[in-house]
Amino acid sequence: MVVLVKQGTDDVKLQRLIAQLQSYGVQVHPVKGTQTTILGLIGDTSAVDIDQIASIDIVESVKRIQEPYKNANRKFHPNDTVVEVGGLKIGGGHFQVIAGPCSVESGEQICEVAARVKKAGANLLRGGAFKPRTSPYAFQGLRAEGIELLSEARGQTGLPIVTEIMSASHIPLFETVDIIQVGARNMQNFELLKELGKLKKPILLKRGLANTIEELLMSAEYIMAGGNTQVILCERGIRTFETATRNTLDISAIPILKQKSHLPVVVDPSHAAGITSLVLPLSLAALAAGADGLIIEVHNNPEKALSDGAQSLTPDQFDGVMEKIKGAAAFFGRVM
Amino acid sequence: MVVLVKQGTDDVKLQRLIAQLQSYGVQVHPVKGTQTTILGLIGDTSAVDIDQIASIDIVESVKRIQEPYKNANRKFHPNDTVVEVGGLKIGGGHFQVIAGPCSVESGEQICEVAARVKKAGANLLRGGAFKPRTSPYAFQGLRAEGIELLSEARGQTGLPIVTEIMSASHIPLFETVDIIQVGARNMQNFELLKELGKLKKPILLKRGLANTIEELLMSAEYIMAGGNTQVILCERGIRTFETATRNTLDISAIPILKQKSHLPVVVDPSHAAGITSLVLPLSLAALAAGADGLIIEVHNNPEKALSDGAQSLTPDQFDGVMEKIKGAAAFFGRVM
Amino acid sequence: MVVLVKQGTDDVKLQRLIAQLQSYGVQVHPVKGTQTTILGLIGDTSAVDIDQIASIDIVESVKRIQEPYKNANRKFHPNDTVVEVGGLKIGGGHFQVIAGPCSVESGEQICEVAARVKKAGANLLRGGAFKPRTSPYAFQGLRAEGIELLSEARGQTGLPIVTEIMSASHIPLFETVDIIQVGARNMQNFELLKELGKLKKPILLKRGLANTIEELLMSAEYIMAGGNTQVILCERGIRTFETATRNTLDISAIPILKQKSHLPVVVDPSHAAGITSLVLPLSLAALAAGADGLIIEVHNNPEKALSDGAQSLTPDQFDGVMEKIKGAAAFFGRVM
Amino acid sequence: MVVLVKQGTDDVKLQRLIAQLQSYGVQVHPVKGTQTTILGLIGDTSAVDIDQIASIDIVESVKRIQEPYKNANRKFHPNDTVVEVGGLKIGGGHFQVIAGPCSVESGEQICEVAARVKKAGANLLRGGAFKPRTSPYAFQGLRAEGIELLSEARGQTGLPIVTEIMSASHIPLFETVDIIQVGARNMQNFELLKELGKLKKPILLKRGLANTIEELLMSAEYIMAGGNTQVILCERGIRTFETATRNTLDISAIPILKQKSHLPVVVDPSHAAGITSLVLPLSLAALAAGADGLIIEVHNNPEKALSDGAQSLTPDQFDGVMEKIKGAAAFFGRVM
Repeated sequence: MVVLVKQGTDDVKLQRLIAQLQSYGVQVHPVKGTQTTILGLIGDTSAVDIDQIASIDIVESVKRIQEPYKNANRKFHPNDTVVEVGGLKIGGGHFQVIAGPCSVESGEQICEVAARVKKAGANLLRGGAFKPRTSPYAFQGLRAEGIELLSEARGQTGLPIVTEIMSASHIPLFETVDIIQVGARNMQNFELLKELGKLKKPILLKRGLANTIEELLMSAEYIMAGGNTQVILCERGIRTFETATRNTLDISAIPILKQKSHLPVVVDPSHAAGITSLVLPLSLAALAAGADGLIIEVHNNPEKALSDGAQSLTPDQFDGVMEKIKGAAAFFGRVM
Repeated sequence: MVVLVKQGTDDVKLQRLIAQLQSYGVQVHPVKGTQTTILGLIGDTSAVDIDQIASIDIVESVKRIQEPYKNANRKFHPNDTVVEVGGLKIGGGHFQVIAGPCSVESGEQICEVAARVKKAGANLLRGGAFKPRTSPYAFQGLRAEGIELLSEARGQTGLPIVTEIMSASHIPLFETVDIIQVGARNMQNFELLKELGKLKKPILLKRGLANTIEELLMSAEYIMAGGNTQVILCERGIRTFETATRNTLDISAIPILKQKSHLPVVVDPSHAAGITSLVLPLSLAALAAGADGLIIEVHNNPEKALSDGAQSLTPDQFDGVMEKIKGAAAFFGRVM
Repeated sequence: MVVLVKQGTDDVKLQRLIAQLQSYGVQVHPVKGTQTTILGLIGDTSAVDIDQIASIDIVESVKRIQEPYKNANRKFHPNDTVVEVGGLKIGGGHFQVIAGPCSVESGEQICEVAARVKKAGANLLRGGAFKPRTSPYAFQGLRAEGIELLSEARGQTGLPIVTEIMSASHIPLFETVDIIQVGARNMQNFELLKELGKLKKPILLKRGLANTIEELLMSAEYIMAGGNTQVILCERGIRTFETATRNTLDISAIPILKQKSHLPVVVDPSHAAGITSLVLPLSLAALAAGADGLIIEVHNNPEKALSDGAQSLTPDQFDGVMEKIKGAAAFFGRVM
Repeated sequence: MVVLVKQGTDDVKLQRLIAQLQSYGVQVHPVKGTQTTILGLIGDTSAVDIDQIASIDIVESVKRIQEPYKNANRKFHPNDTVVEVGGLKIGGGHFQVIAGPCSVESGEQICEVAARVKKAGANLLRGGAFKPRTSPYAFQGLRAEGIELLSEARGQTGLPIVTEIMSASHIPLFETVDIIQVGARNMQNFELLKELGKLKKPILLKRGLANTIEELLMSAEYIMAGGNTQVILCERGIRTFETATRNTLDISAIPILKQKSHLPVVVDPSHAAGITSLVLPLSLAALAAGADGLIIEVHNNPEKALSDGAQSLTPDQFDGVMEKIKGAAAFFGRVM
């Protein structure tokens, strides 16, 4: 961390500031120039409150120069984390496709989709039971019943199931779920993250619409600080000024996350674009950029889907997409 | 709602689409051109799922042309909502200043700040008991104890108290709180909003960092749909590419919200800018633009604050700011 | 400037880096920690190429901690710059309203609008002769003829004229113009800025849609570096995810610019919002936040305007707006 | 185009509006509901001024539902445009890599880099002669001399040359240039675009930092409307809130542009990320997403580069990158 002191600060105040900084347990090295004094802070600065220091009257600005996350940081854990679920591996060269409908709507629907995505080569089943919807008047999901139906579909196909949680109070309902998803809107629902940190279950953590890569890693850190190290990061598009797509897939986030963290990274091309015809090109791009998996919406009847139909593939379309993904995964040396 | 049909669609498919749209209980008026067919949907389209229709293969695009919110909509409730708390009014020409520290840190601190902000002319006391922090290693608030200390400060000063909730499971702890705040990160925590809709207590709903004005109104709609009509909207800055300020205060949101909704609108200049010296100009700007109130951070010792010190005013600075705000409120015809 | 060196760098490479940095004429102070070495650079770092240093293999990151602009910097020029044109002053407590149509369309139109805005209290006349339009099929302005018509309107009313330039090759046509405007899209048209730096005429420099406050000041620096110190900065809204307004007026930019620079700051509420009903609240907000002037669109017949009708006030509406602005300017101690 | 009329509009005004709309040469179809009237406009609406209509007092809102570009629109030109230069083809399945330094610095430098990139498999040489730099104190390029040195490098290697233009007045200097590049900051320099539309030379048009995909196509339309149909579109990252990369590469823009337009699309991974280590993953992602080419920065000595060193590959690194790109291009069926 580097603190820039205001021009013309007298020495008494400067010494007081240095003492205050030292009280955080870091070493302080002043660099005095003719007009400016810079204080270099050396040591573990993760407990230093940057806002607090910035509020001191003689401080011009403060800049953090090291990452504030530890458990999620590749510097301290050079090897890839491989998340295992139901005998499947995600990360460390293992590539998985999670597929299924946006919402679980009925037993027939989820079982039919599950059978089809399995046949096409997907290895995990997704489906929303609890649905975050912008409007209170929109379908809110089958909730507990949805989870039961997902379990039923797993029983029929053997596919592990992934579904989204919206409140820590629902955790008991998720006992049978294989991977718990945290949605974009809850990425900074810290009370929820803390509770998930106490579980021994993989968490698929989606990046928030307006959250930086560093904030995503800090939210992973919340879960990991609680003892749960099985975190899968998910890039699903950020909010920008562009309106041609629902969100802007931040493809660069994949290599950046892989460099900065050891956690696996999956990509959701369906929600990022909100357009069926973009699912294939974005899936291939994600693979090419280094992703460890994909999460793709498939619906047996998108025109009648109770949510997000516009971005869902039909099972037939998904067959075609999977064909290309399998070829590309092999080309890029990923194990599916 | 307007549906644009793809070029070259045959009539059989078109008739099927029209029938499907009619099944939502709306009238469908086709407008046929040489190259394009437009379908105008008339009636209550709030139950129509825009994504679902967009996914139909012969549909080129769908555009909503009416607001999807009802309870929060000024069209259906032309008169200003005035929220009352402890004998104070917010909205309808009544202007209130909510002030206090970012975090409650001790009984001494909160009582001292409360006394000072009251003396300066603030009418409500704010203070964080549950603190959403990006880092799991940062101070997370005194939690239940913080609420008790706020009540103590209310006992000494008579100021109603405003504090943030982070989980529906904490609602029982907020029984003594006068206004419950929903923070920016929880604006779309729909499970929480639904529970708050069941209360008979004013809710201060902060706009999310990356949420549109319409989404803010939809979140208000969640609370109101549950029966709680006492919602105060809060503009607190959005996330943009600019880094000179922490967030970009969307000053235009104030007149837009006042036009589109009957709910009171308050502004948080402290979090928007993250810079002490901007609190006064942004407060005056908010007043001039039509805001019904302000929420300002004041700390008796910002340099030792356990959170957000950089944007907190000292009580002496707040005295000066309030002096100017009172003058401007009088000039702009607002009742304080 | 602060350079963070990668972990585990050997001393030979470090000494070579230090020597290279010293070759820029700055002093280099190394701060060595157990894991990290920070180099503090003291002196005039404005010639140091931050990208070049960042590309050196042993460099982790580089951060600039001082402003890269000099002529525009208040640190080196503490007093407000007051721009004078035709006996009017802008800045230093003097507040001016520039008004007129988006485009000059005819002699009759511009003279009628000029007479009306003068009567309402505006002191300068704006009108587009060269029009930057997104579509090649839209009206592109009367060009040279438009400037002649503006001069005619000035002849009739005495109002100095402000109009936009789109290419350095048009400079000779602007000889009779009182203030040359650089539009948002040309804020980083550096070839144009350099040529304007050679003139002895005030330049109204609009902030680009996606440009930071610092970049705006760097573009002012381009003009000032050429010897033309009469620069007026203009905030006119930035591009964000919000679609309720055309752009998002960055109200915080006003106090930030006034703190960082001595140049006058005017605000364009018409283009920022793109909505007539927002012109008054945003004008008052700009005044309250410290602006030195406003630039407002007025058209005698907005419904027939050849460009940007949606945001133009009628002369009658402008009368009402000016009434309020004059009152507020007096309240806030500004000389009009 | 669809016009939503305000609630409660009387019939006289409505008929007047319809007549006014018809005067644009379009058919107007009113759709009357109990509360709302929608007007559907059928025909060629590209000349209708959306802002003007929006300013009419009885109009609630106006929405365009068809693309405002024609020459660049795939609907009217279903086949891919293939740009030819020096015997090379770009587009229609032909994939080309343009490589070279950010700035031309000396004859020795550009010739050395040209020889190396040719050897590695690049087919065109890039290099900046005129450099748009944020700071007036930074290196501004060798200008005319730079173009001569590029020609020299072409003479030695046979690689066609690509370089950026910053002002229409420089066009005569670009006679020997094979592809003229328009930089991001000049994407809406319409005076420049119009002049380039008169040439018979391919134009590489970079997307502006804050410009939408539609605006990029409208700028292409400016060039094409003048008669020059040889336009290559370039995605090079947009400005967002994320700071981990210099810009956010909008990977979705590739398939969107390929769907909406017949023009070739190339991607600049160097400027998008601003980080050397991201050039390879982003290049592969661009290829996978359907790009027709890449433009990559290579410098023989990035640490001494006079601009943008941080994102330049060394020739050795470029060898490795090209190896992978060639493999991936073959896999994805592209002809290099």
